[in-house]
Amino acid sequence: MKVTKLKSLLIKIFKKKGLNHSDALISSKALINAEMVGAYGHGLSRLKMYCDRISKKVINPKPKIKVKKISPSISYIDADDSIGFVAADIGIKKAIDNAKKTGIALVAVKNSGHYGLSGYYAEQAVKKNLIAMIYTNAPPAVAPHGALKSLFGTNPICFGCPTGSKIPFILDTSISMINRGKIRVAARNNQKIPEGVALDKHGKPTTDSKKALEGVQLPIAGYRGSGLAWMVDILSGVLTGGNHSGKVKDPFDDFSGPQNIGHLFIVFKANLFSSNFNNRIRENIKIIKNLPKIKGVKKITYPGENKFYRYIKNAKKNIIINNNIKQDINELLK
Amino acid sequence: MKVTKLKSLLIKIFKKKGLNHSDALISSKALINAEMVGAYGHGLSRLKMYCDRISKKVINPKPKIKVKKISPSISYIDADDSIGFVAADIGIKKAIDNAKKTGIALVAVKNSGHYGLSGYYAEQAVKKNLIAMIYTNAPPAVAPHGALKSLFGTNPICFGCPTGSKIPFILDTSISMINRGKIRVAARNNQKIPEGVALDKHGKPTTDSKKALEGVQLPIAGYRGSGLAWMVDILSGVLTGGNHSGKVKDPFDDFSGPQNIGHLFIVFKANLFSSNFNNRIRENIKIIKNLPKIKGVKKITYPGENKFYRYIKNAKKNIIINNNIKQDINELLK
Repeated sequence: MKVTKLKSLLIKIFKKKGLNHSDALISSKALINAEMVGAYGHGLSRLKMYCDRISKKVINPKPKIKVKKISPSISYIDADDSIGFVAADIGIKKAIDNAKKTGIALVAVKNSGHYGLSGYYAEQAVKKNLIAMIYTNAPPAVAPHGALKSLFGTNPICFGCPTGSKIPFILDTSISMINRGKIRVAARNNQKIPEGVALDKHGKPTTDSKKALEGVQLPIAGYRGSGLAWMVDILSGVLTGGNHSGKVKDPFDDFSGPQNIGHLFIVFKANLFSSNFNNRIRENIKIIKNLPKIKGVKKITYPGENKFYRYIKNAKKNIIINNNIKQDINELLK
Repeated sequence: MKVTKLKSLLIKIFKKKGLNHSDALISSKALINAEMVGAYGHGLSRLKMYCDRISKKVINPKPKIKVKKISPSISYIDADDSIGFVAADIGIKKAIDNAKKTGIALVAVKNSGHYGLSGYYAEQAVKKNLIAMIYTNAPPAVAPHGALKSLFGTNPICFGCPTGSKIPFILDTSISMINRGKIRVAARNNQKIPEGVALDKHGKPTTDSKKALEGVQLPIAGYRGSGLAWMVDILSGVLTGGNHSGKVKDPFDDFSGPQNIGHLFIVFKANLFSSNFNNRIRENIKIIKNLPKIKGVKKITYPGENKFYRYIKNAKKNIIINNNIKQDINELLK
């Protein structure tokens, strides 16, 4: 399907659910971007979920979003249970605004929902020659170090930075070793999962995907990753007034109330301390790319580079939509 | 040796090397703190190195440190090749000051050196009910993902946060799987190293400590940790005007010039968005601590908790100083 066609269908669906045109456009663009960069778990596979949550009144299609000025640098947004895309769009735009005016911005959002890819918002700041650090929490997926129950979300750590080229540096990394979806697929196909990514229900390491489904997923790098996930829960949940400590509801399974996810945006000018930032980062990337490589490695890439190339490649083609999702779209258009 | 005795000896040594009393005190306290929390690699084992660098004129004992105000929130410090402790002390104090006045602070430091433990500085902010994020780079120790040469330092990520109790949340985590010192010890004792922490000189994974010494150390979590290390190099090196992309000199081996390490301090008030922060973080920690535990795990601890207890325990005892270090101290007092 052509991107323009898909976009108009998605806008139609979101407007049917009660979103105004602008919010429907924001949400559609975010979903399409996820497809284009190959992050299918954040793309059309979630369309029905968002619509179901609106129908069941746990996403508010007509939110009254309040932006409170704490200081010229600092803003606090109550998203009124809006779809996450809209809350995050307002959040990053406010952060960009504050940072342009004062050099640095801190913007907290509460009463939001799943907003897709953090990197998508970081890119918007990077285009204005700003550095962005973005945190959000998510439903329980990973056990804290020593615990036998999932509590932390996949809690991404996101860092975006200009590179002096058109391809931004966008690190957007989950702190879980593997996502639950992948374990589900492996269990269905009777496949093993890698070592060190999950424990069984007794807390023993396992490569048996079925046993892993009954147990818990592990954070990256043991206690270090567990600490990073905890940091993200504090920054995006405890600090912002959002849900935290495992209380964010799974958007697919739990319709008992809004998610109340929190987001935190820290954004500042890249050239605060040197007008020469672009030359410095270009030199940095050049030196690292020119290092001797491990056999079989053709190219050292920085975070975000591969995603950028996937986007460029996919932008030239039609979007391939699988039958399940086609069915979702047709149902939602009815 | 009693702590008070050790402190007066260290002050004497640093003053002999040309530091004024205040800077000698700051440096001595930082070294003693590292010993007390059991971070021996950042404690007395580095005393001789710092003194050697002063003697060889690559640390400036009488720096003229310039603090430039960029905005009420943002400051830029040129540390004039001071010992890292003194630069970091000024940096975190300025950040605390700015954050108390405006809500958020961003302080960059250039022309500094190794400053010991990031967590030590984060603690100072946390005591004032502030949240601190601190970044610094370091000499090459870890290969970027795909590369066959070390370039990133162990580049710690540090996050400090009040907990509503006297024990602060201090995450201070290196992004390398193992430090070179540990591989050296294993090689000397003909011991193997764990899987997945190092590559041999051909880029193949190895558990042979001698082969690992000829090869490179790996970042935590593969490309994810490599991305995090790269982020820290950008934040503390590229952004600040400090050295970056592998140019920070090894303080023990390379006396050809100052290190020009950069530091970045992001500090903000914990109660910006809710006066209730202390209750919220207490609830967060309580819920996580009460999770069911893996067999054999007695207690789930948050980052910084164990270090705090070690400090309390060690504060009641004399400091044990091994013979090598005693010899260093005696030589330096001559």
